[in-house]
Amino acid sequence: MSQNTLAEIEHLIALLAKLPGLGPRSSRRAVLHLIRKKDLLLTPLANAMQEVAASARSCLNCGNISTSDICPICADEARGNGELCVVEDVSDLWAIERAGSFKGRYHVLGGTLSALDGVGPDDLRIPQLVDRMASESVHEVILALDATIDGQTTAHYIMDHLPSGVTLTSLAQGVPIGGELDYLDEGTITAALNSRKAV
Amino acid sequence: MSQNTLAEIEHLIALLAKLPGLGPRSSRRAVLHLIRKKDLLLTPLANAMQEVAASARSCLNCGNISTSDICPICADEARGNGELCVVEDVSDLWAIERAGSFKGRYHVLGGTLSALDGVGPDDLRIPQLVDRMASESVHEVILALDATIDGQTTAHYIMDHLPSGVTLTSLAQGVPIGGELDYLDEGTITAALNSRKAV
Repeated sequence: MSQNTLAEIEHLIALLAKLPGLGPRSSRRAVLHLIRKKDLLLTPLANAMQEVAASARSCLNCGNISTSDICPICADEARGNGELCVVEDVSDLWAIERAGSFKGRYHVLGGTLSALDGVGPDDLRIPQLVDRMASESVHEVILALDATIDGQTTAHYIMDHLPSGVTLTSLAQGVPIGGELDYLDEGTITAALNSRKAV
Repeated sequence: MSQNTLAEIEHLIALLAKLPGLGPRSSRRAVLHLIRKKDLLLTPLANAMQEVAASARSCLNCGNISTSDICPICADEARGNGELCVVEDVSDLWAIERAGSFKGRYHVLGGTLSALDGVGPDDLRIPQLVDRMASESVHEVILALDATIDGQTTAHYIMDHLPSGVTLTSLAQGVPIGGELDYLDEGTITAALNSRKAV
């Protein structure tokens, strides 16, 4: 860009290009689109961002994103049914909430254990998880972690550190709804075969 | 998304999803990323958007995006060299500015003539272009319009309506730098052959 493009606009393009899924080129396109729709999109978007920046924080209990110290899920008495779903990230929590079938509470770890990246148990909100076992009288912990090496390492670490008497479960592995066998990896097919059910 | 996700965040996701290149899924991912980097990215981005929303406007002379009534290119006496490059859109102007080789001024039409979409000459800043011929003593008009039907229709309309005595040129057509013949369409190869040069 030459010296004749405006500093404010260049600055906005550079910032927007840092979003996942956008690069310098698509960011420039997006900024042009925003300027064309100044009143319809740019101003409302700037306001919405300012609002979220002012209000968003982590729930002190579960790590979900919230606008209060305790998120609506943790504040909802009806969801304190003793089931606790452990997820890696807020995006996983949102994904499970979209499915709408889980009625308990969550615990967001904020990552997975990783020797390579130097992520240990204390970086992950695992101590808080252990604390919640007693204070919320949890009877089942559902480990909804990714089926990756790091995810499974984390799951095993949590299994070893939870008090006895708590039921530990993990998400079922198998064929996704609508999935075609032809396109599935061998690991998934093996897991689905091993967990086959009588019909 | 369930009732437990927060209204402000949902609102931001919905707005961001309207950007070209982003959809509901990538917008959600981007918003999570923004919230995680609240001080480093979300707040600066909101401020940058507010600044651009407050300052961006169209240059009254050429249609470029500017923060003043007359954009830096039109305000620059050195660029009033009598060459005027006609482009469809501000993004085209930016692309030519990035190349850095054009030293004249621009005229942004704001679209192309289109019978299908009901876009006529008066919707396009063509009258302003004709006015500029005299006031800026333009001696060459470079038509840098897309090589599409609508772009070429617009080019022909402009050719018919400019005062005589003005040199009209258009961008050369041929093989792009670094382009491989194997991947080029027949039209480009034909144009490049027809405009072949002695070496």
